[in-house]
Amino acid sequence: MDHTMKALVYQGNGELALEDRAIPVIQESTDAIVRVTYASICSSDLHIKHGTVARAKENIILGHEFVGEVVAVGKDVNHFQSGDRVSVNVETFCGDCFFCKRGFVNNCVQGGWELGCRIDGCQAEYVRVPLADQGMTRIPESVSDEAALFNGDILATGYWAASIGEIHPADTVVVLGAGPTGLCTMMCVQLYSPAQVIVVDTNADRLSLAKEKGLADVCINPNQTDVTEEVLRLTEGRGADRVFEVAGGNDTFQTAWKVARPNAIVVLVALYGQTQELPLHLMYGKNLTFKTGGVDANASEEIMRLVQCGKIDTSCLITHRAPLNDVLEGYYVFENQLDGCMKWVITPYVREKRQK
Amino acid sequence: MDHTMKALVYQGNGELALEDRAIPVIQESTDAIVRVTYASICSSDLHIKHGTVARAKENIILGHEFVGEVVAVGKDVNHFQSGDRVSVNVETFCGDCFFCKRGFVNNCVQGGWELGCRIDGCQAEYVRVPLADQGMTRIPESVSDEAALFNGDILATGYWAASIGEIHPADTVVVLGAGPTGLCTMMCVQLYSPAQVIVVDTNADRLSLAKEKGLADVCINPNQTDVTEEVLRLTEGRGADRVFEVAGGNDTFQTAWKVARPNAIVVLVALYGQTQELPLHLMYGKNLTFKTGGVDANASEEIMRLVQCGKIDTSCLITHRAPLNDVLEGYYVFENQLDGCMKWVITPYVREKRQK
Amino acid sequence: MDHTMKALVYQGNGELALEDRAIPVIQESTDAIVRVTYASICSSDLHIKHGTVARAKENIILGHEFVGEVVAVGKDVNHFQSGDRVSVNVETFCGDCFFCKRGFVNNCVQGGWELGCRIDGCQAEYVRVPLADQGMTRIPESVSDEAALFNGDILATGYWAASIGEIHPADTVVVLGAGPTGLCTMMCVQLYSPAQVIVVDTNADRLSLAKEKGLADVCINPNQTDVTEEVLRLTEGRGADRVFEVAGGNDTFQTAWKVARPNAIVVLVALYGQTQELPLHLMYGKNLTFKTGGVDANASEEIMRLVQCGKIDTSCLITHRAPLNDVLEGYYVFENQLDGCMKWVITPYVREKRQK
Amino acid sequence: MDHTMKALVYQGNGELALEDRAIPVIQESTDAIVRVTYASICSSDLHIKHGTVARAKENIILGHEFVGEVVAVGKDVNHFQSGDRVSVNVETFCGDCFFCKRGFVNNCVQGGWELGCRIDGCQAEYVRVPLADQGMTRIPESVSDEAALFNGDILATGYWAASIGEIHPADTVVVLGAGPTGLCTMMCVQLYSPAQVIVVDTNADRLSLAKEKGLADVCINPNQTDVTEEVLRLTEGRGADRVFEVAGGNDTFQTAWKVARPNAIVVLVALYGQTQELPLHLMYGKNLTFKTGGVDANASEEIMRLVQCGKIDTSCLITHRAPLNDVLEGYYVFENQLDGCMKWVITPYVREKRQK
Repeated sequence: MDHTMKALVYQGNGELALEDRAIPVIQESTDAIVRVTYASICSSDLHIKHGTVARAKENIILGHEFVGEVVAVGKDVNHFQSGDRVSVNVETFCGDCFFCKRGFVNNCVQGGWELGCRIDGCQAEYVRVPLADQGMTRIPESVSDEAALFNGDILATGYWAASIGEIHPADTVVVLGAGPTGLCTMMCVQLYSPAQVIVVDTNADRLSLAKEKGLADVCINPNQTDVTEEVLRLTEGRGADRVFEVAGGNDTFQTAWKVARPNAIVVLVALYGQTQELPLHLMYGKNLTFKTGGVDANASEEIMRLVQCGKIDTSCLITHRAPLNDVLEGYYVFENQLDGCMKWVITPYVREKRQK
Repeated sequence: MDHTMKALVYQGNGELALEDRAIPVIQESTDAIVRVTYASICSSDLHIKHGTVARAKENIILGHEFVGEVVAVGKDVNHFQSGDRVSVNVETFCGDCFFCKRGFVNNCVQGGWELGCRIDGCQAEYVRVPLADQGMTRIPESVSDEAALFNGDILATGYWAASIGEIHPADTVVVLGAGPTGLCTMMCVQLYSPAQVIVVDTNADRLSLAKEKGLADVCINPNQTDVTEEVLRLTEGRGADRVFEVAGGNDTFQTAWKVARPNAIVVLVALYGQTQELPLHLMYGKNLTFKTGGVDANASEEIMRLVQCGKIDTSCLITHRAPLNDVLEGYYVFENQLDGCMKWVITPYVREKRQK
Repeated sequence: MDHTMKALVYQGNGELALEDRAIPVIQESTDAIVRVTYASICSSDLHIKHGTVARAKENIILGHEFVGEVVAVGKDVNHFQSGDRVSVNVETFCGDCFFCKRGFVNNCVQGGWELGCRIDGCQAEYVRVPLADQGMTRIPESVSDEAALFNGDILATGYWAASIGEIHPADTVVVLGAGPTGLCTMMCVQLYSPAQVIVVDTNADRLSLAKEKGLADVCINPNQTDVTEEVLRLTEGRGADRVFEVAGGNDTFQTAWKVARPNAIVVLVALYGQTQELPLHLMYGKNLTFKTGGVDANASEEIMRLVQCGKIDTSCLITHRAPLNDVLEGYYVFENQLDGCMKWVITPYVREKRQK
Repeated sequence: MDHTMKALVYQGNGELALEDRAIPVIQESTDAIVRVTYASICSSDLHIKHGTVARAKENIILGHEFVGEVVAVGKDVNHFQSGDRVSVNVETFCGDCFFCKRGFVNNCVQGGWELGCRIDGCQAEYVRVPLADQGMTRIPESVSDEAALFNGDILATGYWAASIGEIHPADTVVVLGAGPTGLCTMMCVQLYSPAQVIVVDTNADRLSLAKEKGLADVCINPNQTDVTEEVLRLTEGRGADRVFEVAGGNDTFQTAWKVARPNAIVVLVALYGQTQELPLHLMYGKNLTFKTGGVDANASEEIMRLVQCGKIDTSCLITHRAPLNDVLEGYYVFENQLDGCMKWVITPYVREKRQK
């Protein structure tokens, strides 16, 4: 019997390779082993590849956004058993520490972002999930694996961002960035029934998609229109009630606070590579609130119910699907946004390589 | 020139009559005079007719839910002028007292429910609106008069109820009662994206309407199904996260707390005629929160924006339309729920009575 | 070696007895065994004695409010070891179920009020504490055992009540009842800096104590003063911003809603023996919120820190102290409120019975 | 009869002078004229003097923190009459616009900081107060003028800062800066019962004062101690739950986010002269919330009640008192923090100059 599997490994120095690795086994009594049915490539994987994620380790298997089927559980896993279909959270967390008890699972003293960063991830045939009772969520019968694929990372991010945004019905919301996470953010912003969502991006296709799918009401391309002026025009001169900065571009932080009305909440979802300028004297009296950081993936049950009842539908994100065999091509296409690529979905490895 | 108009007057002792009355004029510098374009008959009007509204006065013109056109304003009215199309709030309030400053306009020391209760109301050709800057809301060009008709009363009630209900995305919400206010409550509950809304009513047509319009996901007729058992079945045995009691029936208060899960919020929107039993010892440990009372009509701007952007659409409520000439017939049909009557809309008086 | 201990047992039919029982041992891997250093008699113990607690079992050892020293832990207890001084929560809870994750530990699917009710309690020399990692709190060196005695039950109740009361600085707060739980409620109400606390009780000594200790600003004896009138007089005619009903008397529920201002929050802490009347039609328009139920003992760390820093001091509650030998006398004195008894503290059993 | 008064005028170019000016009169029907009994010198006055307040006008009378007696009111002032003793808010606001209705009076479309900045202020014998019903607060009989002197500005600032800080009982709070506003912030932070308040300042006297008055539990002088290390030591390695940055020094913004625990709220009260660096990549995953801006002086009634009941006492701020005659000396002493000067209080002008 073969105990090896295929896995995409970060070798350091920007190098990735599809390697043979041992199929993982239970190490701790709270572990589960999951057979991956769908995984995705995420921009965070690119950050690791390019060496900008300090906590990432070399020679780990990449990937942290996936769904699969449980094939083994440790003896202290109480909520799952073999055969369960599950989505898995990007963060590994204990549920018991100071931070977890407050919902801040991103700061769990035992975890945080582990899978595909500090321990082997999901761009493989199997993956070991530590603290499985906390990090896994059962997929209901009526939900397909693919429909739940983004629950644990970019959809969790959008959900977290929208929920800390304190959106009220009838608000005007600006979302900077219409990439995968921006679209997920808009999906979750819509749960709170703003009167108008204004999306800003330089990519006309992504703007169109946001509008066509009913995620945004107004599209602004900053290469064509002055964003601040246009937002003021659309808000009786006041500015937006809520701003979500998901772009992480050169000027987008400055745009974020400028388009906000006095006393707005500005949620900074993007991961910046460098220090931003905070001109507090120029915004004095605007009384802005800035909420910063990375997802607390603590609402998986709620997200799954919203997917199940149809109030969230991420299918528009999937532009490409191919087996693990083609994952390196996937990285190339995804990184360069070729062929309109939004999300590249990795399906299981095919031993008898099919004809292209 | 004729200074009289037609008006529906509550004469006391359950008697109503269409009378000739003087067209109202500005009395205080904060008044506006509004020509009524659409008014409705409301169940509160029936309560006055039947003598169960202690604060109501005899010989006043009935009606408190309407839209119209401003024809005159007092010199201290700053936000409106003749020609403006407006919706008007059921409550008259100053915006300046202890309660108004906190949004509790229902307890305004200068007002509360005045129009059609303690001062002349809107089932007439013209109406005087006191404290007009506070109580009126401009109707945008893109919104028809009819689309804004319910903003000031039953839609405001649904909006208030939903907003104090602290609904979270993915919640299960039970709404008891699918009459006009129940439907408005469901419209506003949907703004918060519950995973499922369960509506309970004995009227099959109203249940069907709620489902067909996407306001509810599950319908329960208590004459056919045990409500508590069914709600438990639909919630993994826990009960509903939020309950809105809009029915005001004999047993509906008891149903409300029984279908609630531990630590749920139960909003009591209905107006009961008599004391309810509160068996605290039977619900000890359920740790329920009960929110009681009548609408604080303090969110008119937000409601108008939601109507404008299409996130609220009350057109399904309007089953009947007829001029003020026929208002007594309207009361009869509305009170007896004849002909599937949900809301009877009163259009302007027609001097040359048309052929039926 | 002797494996028996003394324990106060509820024998059913209102009978209590000091019996010899086996010293408890670890049964589950999440258990701890605690040597009791101080325990108290609580009014809930009396409710069991009188047969009004349906979930209570006969032949269990009574008592659920105590501190002690850990003498053994199961292998899955991670946060404690022998020798730790601990306070213990009245509720046993898993920390992992739907309710626990939301802080509603009173509704834990594995627990709730177990100790001294459904399993052996603390009016004994030793007690087995299930799910010890969740239910126990370490007592810091600078805090005496006695100072932490009430943390797990009546102080937790006061803390929970005050925290769900949403008190703002400068509010007027009415507390009905100045018994032990009423006093703990006032201690915790004071954490939120109301401008005035008004306490209502028929017991002049308890009123005096509340005032003398700075827990209340105004005392009202309903036998001498009309409570509603006096509260209105003290609040510019509005009524109290927040009301805590801790008395559970015949009329106290009615007093609670009458002294509340419109839009107040009324927290119902008392456990009533029978159905209360809820005259919603008489309070229509007051828009009151009622929060009901029993303590969620989920804030033990916070309570301990407040005891440690001196912002909560329960020493005034202790009027009597005697060893377990005298516990039956304690029940008699406590139940009949003899000798000014507020709280009877049970100290360890003395084998060589001392001279009285 | 003499219609002139003495007034401290900002002449531009850093020049101040005590001039003769006309006693102000009612201009708008919503104005009041107030005879100043106590005024203070505020650091914002220094900012105007040094030309760093862009909105300030030359030749206006300085001063915006004061109490006095109403000597005349316009006909639309409803809540005050001649003879009333009042404190006055730093901000002028209408109470009716989009921002005022939400409590954001600092962004009132008609006002904001006007007195002593864009219109004549209070470092004079009389001052005209526009929109007097909104901006004035009656001083109760039991409160002295001096006790209410800071209600409208620095105490309002501390109250606003503490209230947006979302402090919970038992929190650890760090306050950077122990000047007048820092002390007011600590007074208001204490209203929420943190377990420990840690104050940071380089001025040993101010640290001592904070500790002696019970406003802080721990003092840190950054010239002697590593602030971040010490805060971590005092918080089991986590960092502070809440941070208030009131210092506005060179490094204090960086200290603020470094001493905060993950998911803390950092309130930026200080007014900075220049752009700060926001190293979002270094704090990624800390998930901090930053709340920025200037006081919304919307809680004057609450502040007055807290002063009245003794829960706030600002008397320790007053180190110097002298009549308006000596105001230029006051500016010199205050600006240079000579003689331990915390707050210089200006008493009424003395026509017969007393002997020094």
